[in-house]
Amino acid sequence: MRQKTRPMPSEPEQAAGNGVLDRRLFLTGGAAAAIGSAVLPDHARAAEALPVEPWMKTPGSPFAPYGQPSKYAGKVGRIFASAPGTTGTGASRTPHHLLDGMMTPNGLHFERHHSGIPDINPETHRLLIHGLVKRPLTFTLDALMRYPMESRIAFIECAGNSALLYQKEPAQLGVQPIHGLLSCAEWTGVRLATLLDDAGVDPRAQWILAEGADASGMSRSVPLAKAMGDAMVAIYQNGEPVRPSNGYPMRLLLPGYEGNANVKWLRRIKLTEAPTMTKDETSKYTMLQNDGKALQFCFAQEAKSVITRPSPGLTMAAPGLYEITGLAWSGYGKIAKVEVSADGGASWALAALQEPVLPMAVTRFRSPWRWDGGPATLLSRATDETGYVQPSRSRLIADRGARAAYHFNGIASWGVAQGGEVRHVYA
Amino acid sequence: MRQKTRPMPSEPEQAAGNGVLDRRLFLTGGAAAAIGSAVLPDHARAAEALPVEPWMKTPGSPFAPYGQPSKYAGKVGRIFASAPGTTGTGASRTPHHLLDGMMTPNGLHFERHHSGIPDINPETHRLLIHGLVKRPLTFTLDALMRYPMESRIAFIECAGNSALLYQKEPAQLGVQPIHGLLSCAEWTGVRLATLLDDAGVDPRAQWILAEGADASGMSRSVPLAKAMGDAMVAIYQNGEPVRPSNGYPMRLLLPGYEGNANVKWLRRIKLTEAPTMTKDETSKYTMLQNDGKALQFCFAQEAKSVITRPSPGLTMAAPGLYEITGLAWSGYGKIAKVEVSADGGASWALAALQEPVLPMAVTRFRSPWRWDGGPATLLSRATDETGYVQPSRSRLIADRGARAAYHFNGIASWGVAQGGEVRHVYA
Repeated sequence: MRQKTRPMPSEPEQAAGNGVLDRRLFLTGGAAAAIGSAVLPDHARAAEALPVEPWMKTPGSPFAPYGQPSKYAGKVGRIFASAPGTTGTGASRTPHHLLDGMMTPNGLHFERHHSGIPDINPETHRLLIHGLVKRPLTFTLDALMRYPMESRIAFIECAGNSALLYQKEPAQLGVQPIHGLLSCAEWTGVRLATLLDDAGVDPRAQWILAEGADASGMSRSVPLAKAMGDAMVAIYQNGEPVRPSNGYPMRLLLPGYEGNANVKWLRRIKLTEAPTMTKDETSKYTMLQNDGKALQFCFAQEAKSVITRPSPGLTMAAPGLYEITGLAWSGYGKIAKVEVSADGGASWALAALQEPVLPMAVTRFRSPWRWDGGPATLLSRATDETGYVQPSRSRLIADRGARAAYHFNGIASWGVAQGGEVRHVYA
Repeated sequence: MRQKTRPMPSEPEQAAGNGVLDRRLFLTGGAAAAIGSAVLPDHARAAEALPVEPWMKTPGSPFAPYGQPSKYAGKVGRIFASAPGTTGTGASRTPHHLLDGMMTPNGLHFERHHSGIPDINPETHRLLIHGLVKRPLTFTLDALMRYPMESRIAFIECAGNSALLYQKEPAQLGVQPIHGLLSCAEWTGVRLATLLDDAGVDPRAQWILAEGADASGMSRSVPLAKAMGDAMVAIYQNGEPVRPSNGYPMRLLLPGYEGNANVKWLRRIKLTEAPTMTKDETSKYTMLQNDGKALQFCFAQEAKSVITRPSPGLTMAAPGLYEITGLAWSGYGKIAKVEVSADGGASWALAALQEPVLPMAVTRFRSPWRWDGGPATLLSRATDETGYVQPSRSRLIADRGARAAYHFNGIASWGVAQGGEVRHVYA
């Protein structure tokens, strides 16, 4: 983002303080063209003679069964960290500051593993459904492939995403390390309800236990209502078989629920009367309150948004027109609106939402912004279709208490300094 | 798909001959569950003790910056062929028989190259806009990144896709070699209209020439109206930078137009009064008529559909309930409906369309089918929102003549034999 811009010849309509412009500038057709001359970077003004580059003088590379990114896009990768003494217990994070659109490519989907990525042979892998059912069942992958499928584009967000914002001081990091435990993909598989119906649900069953086939035996309890609702045993991710790092050959998808409950490498579903109280829902993934008690089974991710560009690491070089863009999502349905502020929340403007806007999927928002070269504090605020409004950080912490560690969905802020450096700040 | 099924305990409603069932069986919630016991494969009936597999006994693999598919999914790859004496002049094809959903992962997007994949350094790559403009402009990738972006999920289909169906006898091949020159991705970039507006379009301009930076100098003429409409200079593909095999660092996206016109590695756009008559629109990509004359500039891909499962190579092992699924698309807008037949076209039933249904994107359709173990001929027929209905193969050939080689969008047929083998047939 190191470009210079010339002064705008005409001023688009301002929609909020400190240069946030009307989102309709970004709608299709003539309106988009109308801002063209306002954004034109200086160095694009004079046409240069096009050099005949080396790659035009010789035949290029051959075909390959499975393609890879450009070697020049090497920085577009995940960062990750593992617990001491392990190589696979930890998390990797999606580089949202370098991406755009709503889909996360499979190679960049975030991961959270509790004992690495198991090397599962799909021929021998089995899914067992048992417990409070009329007839326990075992499924091979081939057997699942025989069932009717459905597809849905859904985000998955780790419950621990953005947890750094619970800290008293803003961590001097960017989108990827702070908010990178979020991704969005098209998942295709079999409704779990169909399989449970085949097994015959005992009326006493109120919960399920879902267990993964990794070495940590990752397992979680989920209310039966969710299991009989939109839960899916996902087999495909963005069209192709689910990646090993995301549950190959099959994972549980619980649209809108915290990532940990979307059990990867799914091998067992047991129907139970009550939650099983596994290690992963007692020692972790609970909401510790100020009084030392913890809330359990907080499943759905509340409405949230993050500005991905501009953001730390993407320094702005000169005043002019920019696009503020980011992602918004809610575990309770569709995003209804996203507002953007450039003056620390003193005034807000509606951002344009990129279609399609889908429930439990990320929605890309875009807002035109004329940066005057001075200090600015950029915020985004999501509202979902239930009317829930993403709270301020201070309000969230006041409600949650100082010991919370999960489900941070407060408003995040980026500070733009004179000179264009972007830093993490608390507004 | 080699599973056995038991007879269905209750018969879902038949919607067309030879076992095609009502699509509402595949809608959400209770209805999906309602067919559960009808599809249950035999070998899933009795629960087995779950073995503790080797991958549960040892920590799994570590994190990686960029993930890859399972080694067990190696067959989920593209097939390709190159012209004699070349390694990169030819095409690779998407394995739709092994995929599901609407998105094609970037590693499996089809390719058609005329001189291989250029190894382009994005720092030195330039896009020139010149010709009939008020001020010629040159853009770096960074300059483009500064413009407002938009995203759209769009199919790209090679004009030569499915051309084998022009042959007199049905090629004994499957979905991938016959129909694999089609893929669908989310593309994000800058509206071309915005850039042209910056350059200032001379009123005499009626066409553009778009040129790629590969060694073949691939170039095509496109009407200015399309360039000023929904045309995009795409920078991101499924969220990440466009792959080298699909145009890195930038490509032209012309939603709904034949693939060849979506020029990859875009380096130059020249505004002209008339088409430039490049080699790629004169010696190729024209529609040869019976009288020896050729139609030029047939850009939009007409409405079309293909059943991807069952299809050749996916043998069915026993009678029972199956899902007939496939893809439908139109270069003229949204898919309005897809009909499926299991009796060679004597009767048809509406298939369920997977949401979201988007213009110029593929739409996944699904139809429940009770195979009785006897011969069947499976067809799908798409209708788009303009009311255009995908024609029969014989009607298409009667209209086009015997010399046509592009834009085949007639109805394709799979024959299911007693015993479950699936072959390419002409219905």
